[in-house]
Amino acid sequence: MKKMKLRHNLKGQLVCLAREAKEASRVLAAVSSEKKNTVLKYMAESIMAGKEQILAANAKDLKNAALKRLGKAFVERLALDERRLMEMAESLREIARLEDPVDKNIRSWVRPNGLAISKVSVPIGVILIIYESRPNVTSDCVGLCFKSGNAVILRGGSDAINSNLAIYEVIAGVLDRYGLPRSIVSFIDSTDRKAVDVLLTLDEYINLVMPRGGESLIRQVRDRSKIPVIKHYKGVCHVFVDDGADFIMAQRIILNAKVQRPGVCNAVETLLVHQNLAEDFLPTMIESLQDAGVQVRGDLLTRKIVKGLKVATEKDWSTEYLDLILSVKVVKDIDEAVRHINNYGSSHSDTIVTQNEANAQKFLKEVDSACVYVNASTRFTDGYQFGFGAEIGISTDKLHARGPMGLEELTTYKYVIRGNGQIRE
Amino acid sequence: MKKMKLRHNLKGQLVCLAREAKEASRVLAAVSSEKKNTVLKYMAESIMAGKEQILAANAKDLKNAALKRLGKAFVERLALDERRLMEMAESLREIARLEDPVDKNIRSWVRPNGLAISKVSVPIGVILIIYESRPNVTSDCVGLCFKSGNAVILRGGSDAINSNLAIYEVIAGVLDRYGLPRSIVSFIDSTDRKAVDVLLTLDEYINLVMPRGGESLIRQVRDRSKIPVIKHYKGVCHVFVDDGADFIMAQRIILNAKVQRPGVCNAVETLLVHQNLAEDFLPTMIESLQDAGVQVRGDLLTRKIVKGLKVATEKDWSTEYLDLILSVKVVKDIDEAVRHINNYGSSHSDTIVTQNEANAQKFLKEVDSACVYVNASTRFTDGYQFGFGAEIGISTDKLHARGPMGLEELTTYKYVIRGNGQIRE
Repeated sequence: MKKMKLRHNLKGQLVCLAREAKEASRVLAAVSSEKKNTVLKYMAESIMAGKEQILAANAKDLKNAALKRLGKAFVERLALDERRLMEMAESLREIARLEDPVDKNIRSWVRPNGLAISKVSVPIGVILIIYESRPNVTSDCVGLCFKSGNAVILRGGSDAINSNLAIYEVIAGVLDRYGLPRSIVSFIDSTDRKAVDVLLTLDEYINLVMPRGGESLIRQVRDRSKIPVIKHYKGVCHVFVDDGADFIMAQRIILNAKVQRPGVCNAVETLLVHQNLAEDFLPTMIESLQDAGVQVRGDLLTRKIVKGLKVATEKDWSTEYLDLILSVKVVKDIDEAVRHINNYGSSHSDTIVTQNEANAQKFLKEVDSACVYVNASTRFTDGYQFGFGAEIGISTDKLHARGPMGLEELTTYKYVIRGNGQIRE
Repeated sequence: MKKMKLRHNLKGQLVCLAREAKEASRVLAAVSSEKKNTVLKYMAESIMAGKEQILAANAKDLKNAALKRLGKAFVERLALDERRLMEMAESLREIARLEDPVDKNIRSWVRPNGLAISKVSVPIGVILIIYESRPNVTSDCVGLCFKSGNAVILRGGSDAINSNLAIYEVIAGVLDRYGLPRSIVSFIDSTDRKAVDVLLTLDEYINLVMPRGGESLIRQVRDRSKIPVIKHYKGVCHVFVDDGADFIMAQRIILNAKVQRPGVCNAVETLLVHQNLAEDFLPTMIESLQDAGVQVRGDLLTRKIVKGLKVATEKDWSTEYLDLILSVKVVKDIDEAVRHINNYGSSHSDTIVTQNEANAQKFLKEVDSACVYVNASTRFTDGYQFGFGAEIGISTDKLHARGPMGLEELTTYKYVIRGNGQIRE
């Protein structure tokens, strides 16, 4: 692990760091699965062994956050405690238990001329992660990148710098102990915003950028990057309650998707209800949402059924509230629901509550989102929930990867072709 | 198929075209494999039936090329004849015969809470292809995009405009006949360079850009695009002749890789020879290359063995000659060969000629290229040669796809999750 203190020659230093990361990625690619798993388990142990330093560093960040009067949601994401450290360690152990995603034979075939072609999974190379306040992202990203054979360059938010550095010191010690190059994990220990701009031009060394943060940060990275970017713009997720749906199930799913953790991307923002059940379903549903502290905004039909609601405007349909707010619309049928989702949604996660198998299939096929659900909460769109151990991010892009990204999504492939002297006629 | 004559409101028209392409992609996604195959076979027939119009249009382009004194290689790529039309038709038929890449279950698993997750292949959506002079790209791209359920926007080079339009008219007729929306295939019938700049901002509608052409065009597209781009920069391909290699095999592979078609990306540009066989191997090898009209440039050791060669400079090692020129270097061992290729190559296609299985495996694992070969010519890096029917391009990127891209590479996936009321605790 390489810690970067930026001084004078910013560009030169970053080029050097990125080049060393590239070289280290080649060393890591040759490390056996067994050794990688041993190192990961030792990282987990070391995080628990280093908990005092990590929590002390986190206390400094929390103190600074209080001085800066940063918001409650921010502090909630930043704060570490023993339970959260245990979760970080458990993610690393879970990643160690998962199958190595590299060097897998994806497909093999033989051509008429005798050439034997295999498509084999390989690491991507060097991955740059730009993230904000959550310190667990540091260990999750190190774990996933390490297991998938990728060098990683971490650029965390300045408000979590002490916590991130403490976690990184622990991981650095583990790499040293196992004789692995420090450049397998690099940490940009600088709050100079120019550092990111420089890194985004280094497409010779860095193969992928994953910005994790607000939509404007991500658009900035996309506009400036010469390196391919996998993006997560926002989560405008929907629940559609179909005609004939089980009311109790629909109510539980909607409350869970809205209320359990409203500040995250896989929380629901818009409820669509089939016109045939709107009158029976909406009054109780909206009452229970309001009881849970949710502000409900309705379209014309919803407001006819339940009086006194705020108006849902055109803008509401594409807004990610990240808050206890829900927009509600009554739709004619499943076709209108699908059109609405494809038109206003963010291709993230959408669910249908239904007892009708034909409609379930139609929804799964026609809704153009990374994760499409039948009879379950959208809150499951998450690497850990999917069984990936952790996630490097969630993609709302369509290229390379969609939805929660775990180990497999951190690989690419090469074609391995064996012949016995074949030439092209 | 939609033909676009750009007049006044360039941006407005292109937004409209891209939006209609998006809508058409949703219609196409619902078309059955059987119908897609029928349409593809009829496209093949229609190209042969329309050969007179297509060849007449091509004659116009060739006449203009002569007036403009465009180069021989350019004219060779532009020229159509009955045989080339038959090849275009045969590619469409081959694509019809291939398995539908969409709606395939890639992987399924059940979580402890009972959620059943499937990763299912789906079309990418709308694909923009920017290409230059080869008219067969028009039918190849239409065939591959159509079969994989993607709408396509074609922007061909102005010097092939008559040929491309004639091919497109034929395909348009087929879409009409089968009642499919014309916007499944759009053709930008404008030579206004601004059209490309506008299209590259329409990431709301277009999901992928594939520029096919010279490196500077591709870098321009990358710099301006808000849409993900899959790039093919260049092909600096290598042959490494290992200690103990079969001389006859090595000579045949090198001659084939250099001479059979020097103007293409998978031709070899640098020959690396193990020091132990350099003195025995190089004199005959270089003589046979020179007999075939190849200019050989050598490093110091090569020039000690064969006198009178031009010097290969540092710049040569990373140059894509696309011509009858070859740079030659004597290396100490396979490690130096691998380092040279990873350092100077373009991650395209590289081959080792060897009888040593350990070295073969080392080369296949450590050379960081899209296609790595043992004992075969690099000229096989090609969608048709790989059995993909045709190719939409060759990627030297690492994200989403590497090497020749066929039907499978024109798909992405979604997660389909079925529950029975699961909520997140």
